[in-house]
Amino acid sequence: RGEQVGPVAGISIFGLDALSSAAYGPEAALTLLIPLGLLGPAYLLPITISIIILLAIVYFSYRQTIQAYPGGGGSYTVARENLGARPALLAGAALMTDYVLTAAVGISAGVGALVSAVPSLQPHTLALCLFILAAITVVNLRGLRDSGLIFMGPTYLFIGCLFSLLAIGLLQTLLNGGHPAAVIAPPKLPPATAAVSLWLLLKAFASGCTAMTGVEAVSNGVKAFREPAVQTARRTLTIIIVLLMALLGGIAWLVRAYGIGATDPGKPGYDSVLSQLAAAVAGKGAFYYVTMASILLVLAFSANTAFADFPRLCRAIASDGYLPNSFADRGRRLVFTSGIIVLAALSAVLLILFGGVTDRLIPLYAVGAFLAFTMSQAGMVAHWRKKGGPGSTHSLLVNGLGAFVTAITVAVVMVAKFAEGAWVTMLLIPGMLLLMQVIRRHYRRVALETDSTSPLSVDDVRPPLVVVPMERWSSVSKKGLRLALTLSPDVVALHVAADQESDTLQEQWDQLVAQPARRAGLQPPQLVVLPSPYRFRITPIVDYIRELEAKGPGRQIAVLIPDLIERRWYQYFLHRQRGEVLAARLLLTGSRQTVIINVPWHLGAELPSGKPREG
Amino acid sequence: RGEQVGPVAGISIFGLDALSSAAYGPEAALTLLIPLGLLGPAYLLPITISIIILLAIVYFSYRQTIQAYPGGGGSYTVARENLGARPALLAGAALMTDYVLTAAVGISAGVGALVSAVPSLQPHTLALCLFILAAITVVNLRGLRDSGLIFMGPTYLFIGCLFSLLAIGLLQTLLNGGHPAAVIAPPKLPPATAAVSLWLLLKAFASGCTAMTGVEAVSNGVKAFREPAVQTARRTLTIIIVLLMALLGGIAWLVRAYGIGATDPGKPGYDSVLSQLAAAVAGKGAFYYVTMASILLVLAFSANTAFADFPRLCRAIASDGYLPNSFADRGRRLVFTSGIIVLAALSAVLLILFGGVTDRLIPLYAVGAFLAFTMSQAGMVAHWRKKGGPGSTHSLLVNGLGAFVTAITVAVVMVAKFAEGAWVTMLLIPGMLLLMQVIRRHYRRVALETDSTSPLSVDDVRPPLVVVPMERWSSVSKKGLRLALTLSPDVVALHVAADQESDTLQEQWDQLVAQPARRAGLQPPQLVVLPSPYRFRITPIVDYIRELEAKGPGRQIAVLIPDLIERRWYQYFLHRQRGEVLAARLLLTGSRQTVIINVPWHLGAELPSGKPREG
Repeated sequence: RGEQVGPVAGISIFGLDALSSAAYGPEAALTLLIPLGLLGPAYLLPITISIIILLAIVYFSYRQTIQAYPGGGGSYTVARENLGARPALLAGAALMTDYVLTAAVGISAGVGALVSAVPSLQPHTLALCLFILAAITVVNLRGLRDSGLIFMGPTYLFIGCLFSLLAIGLLQTLLNGGHPAAVIAPPKLPPATAAVSLWLLLKAFASGCTAMTGVEAVSNGVKAFREPAVQTARRTLTIIIVLLMALLGGIAWLVRAYGIGATDPGKPGYDSVLSQLAAAVAGKGAFYYVTMASILLVLAFSANTAFADFPRLCRAIASDGYLPNSFADRGRRLVFTSGIIVLAALSAVLLILFGGVTDRLIPLYAVGAFLAFTMSQAGMVAHWRKKGGPGSTHSLLVNGLGAFVTAITVAVVMVAKFAEGAWVTMLLIPGMLLLMQVIRRHYRRVALETDSTSPLSVDDVRPPLVVVPMERWSSVSKKGLRLALTLSPDVVALHVAADQESDTLQEQWDQLVAQPARRAGLQPPQLVVLPSPYRFRITPIVDYIRELEAKGPGRQIAVLIPDLIERRWYQYFLHRQRGEVLAARLLLTGSRQTVIINVPWHLGAELPSGKPREG
Repeated sequence: RGEQVGPVAGISIFGLDALSSAAYGPEAALTLLIPLGLLGPAYLLPITISIIILLAIVYFSYRQTIQAYPGGGGSYTVARENLGARPALLAGAALMTDYVLTAAVGISAGVGALVSAVPSLQPHTLALCLFILAAITVVNLRGLRDSGLIFMGPTYLFIGCLFSLLAIGLLQTLLNGGHPAAVIAPPKLPPATAAVSLWLLLKAFASGCTAMTGVEAVSNGVKAFREPAVQTARRTLTIIIVLLMALLGGIAWLVRAYGIGATDPGKPGYDSVLSQLAAAVAGKGAFYYVTMASILLVLAFSANTAFADFPRLCRAIASDGYLPNSFADRGRRLVFTSGIIVLAALSAVLLILFGGVTDRLIPLYAVGAFLAFTMSQAGMVAHWRKKGGPGSTHSLLVNGLGAFVTAITVAVVMVAKFAEGAWVTMLLIPGMLLLMQVIRRHYRRVALETDSTSPLSVDDVRPPLVVVPMERWSSVSKKGLRLALTLSPDVVALHVAADQESDTLQEQWDQLVAQPARRAGLQPPQLVVLPSPYRFRITPIVDYIRELEAKGPGRQIAVLIPDLIERRWYQYFLHRQRGEVLAARLLLTGSRQTVIINVPWHLGAELPSGKPREG
């Protein structure tokens, strides 16, 4: 994403995803604290402090990954190089989940900000999510210019707005002895329905951890940084982490000071925590709306980053044979097209299943992200063990601590959020692992079947029987017949006629085809008219070819199918399908005798110019 | 849908759609009457009487259509035969709109019934709609057994439940002097916020007219009826219309007696009119839930009828050249597949745009359905005028009255519901007309370009240069090379190598290919190795073919692409794409010199059995 970037651009390109997590992480924790009533907001602070400590550990881990993998060290790469195929697949499955959720949560949280600012839109939450998803998908399918500049506006606007908000809020809090007066009071907290318990705090911590998602982005893209790349990348990561810590800490502090709690997610009256905070600190003026717009924008852009990363990850996994090889080729737009469509479809399914409500997506997100963290850190531990040398023990311990705490977090999330949705990942991730292994096994079986070391055998070089289906006499069928005559002396033209009586092709055949062929000293093509009283156009041809195959088992048959081509996007819908269906039916149900020859006719380009009509 | 059906099966197959309209038509009118407060329910009766009169007129019109078109007289057919191409396209566009809305409204109203019975599901309205749409789409893509029997259960259950409900309700009303006590009182009507006005009643009438949608089904399917088909169809239509009138009249009567009003559609607390009525008459016991389930079922089945009708309509329009010809072929599953996918996509867009709320879809539905009615009746007027003879004046007047009143209704709906959504159809229907004419013009231009009457010219019958891209030496590449040698003496094998040093194909070429070819007396194929340091696999091949084309402008080039085929649904994802991309790039960007030869390799079926590995 960009080339030779410094910290300023780097923060926006690689920090967007991490920083935007501040928009849903604290809220995810606060939502769990709703049953505590008035006490809820106060407990966000200790939870946030735990998250900040976890973040610091992960930060030191990723500093090392950056140094060890200056070419870019994604979880999948690191795990594959150091831990082997199976752990790498686990990392890959976790990352794929992570990216799908980055898209889904980015969009749903963005829409959450939007419906907080404009409450009348709340009933349309899911429709808005799907609309934004469709817009991002279309933009990515058309190809987004990979310019870091478009990220800078929203990112710095977001940073600017949020830090202004925090600064004003902190000042007010200090000036008012810890109890600032809200400009617009947040919704009243409901009465407490539960007492504080370790279990509740653990669940809130598990949800709040999603505030850390996205911090791995810098380590994936080290080589995009300006030389010395490793130093620039590390400095950028440091700034991003410090900004994120300040945001999380500041939000937790002000939430307590203003007594802000989460509102019921997905219900009318929903008001996001940052919206409540902005309204409490600064009222609902222009600043409020600019802040909310910047939140919506960074979240939409963070969803967009998944659209760049997911296809790349699929390519890496596919080039190892674990995903369809169409994901693997370099330099193909289709690689990205497939990846984008798969990602969009999965995100849409999740958004629809969970009604576009962020809070319901959080458990899945936390599992995917932290499992990927763990696999990456564990890979680094193996890396240092293999490498050895001075300092490697220290590095091993740092990454080991990272792996340990993130693994503990995965376990906490799995247990604490099992019923709320983490069970989905318990089915999803093993399912993905199984699928990837089945794909790999399939490719190996195919390779085994087609492997050959024996030389070419050239026993029967008789030219094939060439069959030319022909709807009517046209320039296109002439081109096909001409080609057929160069390939083989045995050519059969097939004409499907609903009403043989009124059909004129048979009468004209001698004059149009047989005579010119004879004059050129060639065996004239034979015309076969197939009756089709019910106006089927494809089945009679397929049946005839089947008969030919049965009659001459050793004979190659080449079916020549014309293909009208126009260089417009809609041409596919207008022309190609009938020929494709015939080709597909012949290939799929055919024997090994039959091959297909596609003869293109380029509309508007085949006839000599200045002569639009022939004859 | 079925064959040789009598009235009993006919009512369920062809009446399902019309009868299920009673589940949303009266409610659509009542929703407009909400501002009248307590007075609202009373005004449903006069509106329903107007709708019943309109229904009677349309009934007599369609009786005549059945007699005149015993082969099936859909709006498009009748308009095309009697009014010409442009009016037929208008009818076609109106019908397509109608079918899309039949699917969308059937589903949304069904979900409306579901969330009335289970209010906790209300926030998931849109997700439920999309889920049911997906289920119906999958069932139809897999091919639904066209058995009338599956329609009979839900239809007669629905008729049975609703008439029991009406009977009990009417009895209670009569026994209690017009003021029955509700078992479960309906939600309180809100205070009046507007006075009665003609404008308001007109808008309610316009919405309520959707209670008539679907009555045309019998006239489309006359030939499915038992002989004498016309009489059986007419009798079936009579029964359906009488049942529908009784349902609408009974509902309107009871709504007034019990003081039932519509609740805010799409908001929490939504309770459908039939749900309120069932609860008021019989309480929320087993009967209530059976009734609501039967409503959900008939509405889902009525959405399903659109999935059978829409592809057939598309085929009729496409066979006249106004839609892509892939919709037109007979006996092709793909025709239905395309139609089903287009219908599902359009319905999904509408459901998402309108949040799955029936009330917001009603204006579009009314315009589409009544425009189709009008075009059909207007076609019948032209039919009688052309036909002449005894009785034709009488018939002309009956259909003329039908055309007139339905045209008036279209105008009323357009004006009354313009702001609420009818404006969408003002853009949509002309847009569809334009699109259909552009498609037709395109096909005519192509026909003109390719038309030919001149005989075949056979000046240059030199065999083509055959190019065989080859990833590695395998049974598949051997098959391709063997075929190439039968087609032409000039064969070039293309091998893309990331690292030419370590590539062994070049060393082995002489032994594997050149020597056997020479021994058989053939010109040995030449091996060309293309370097690809960045591991692009397709671009080097395309570039090489482009060079060949430029070097020999007159020479035909045949590119031979192997195609791994496995008869499993997933084979497309695993094998075909890379070859297809190469073929598509060569065809789309190529000149007229290049043709593609697809050589299939049937996995598991090409090698002699008992010999899974060769060599």
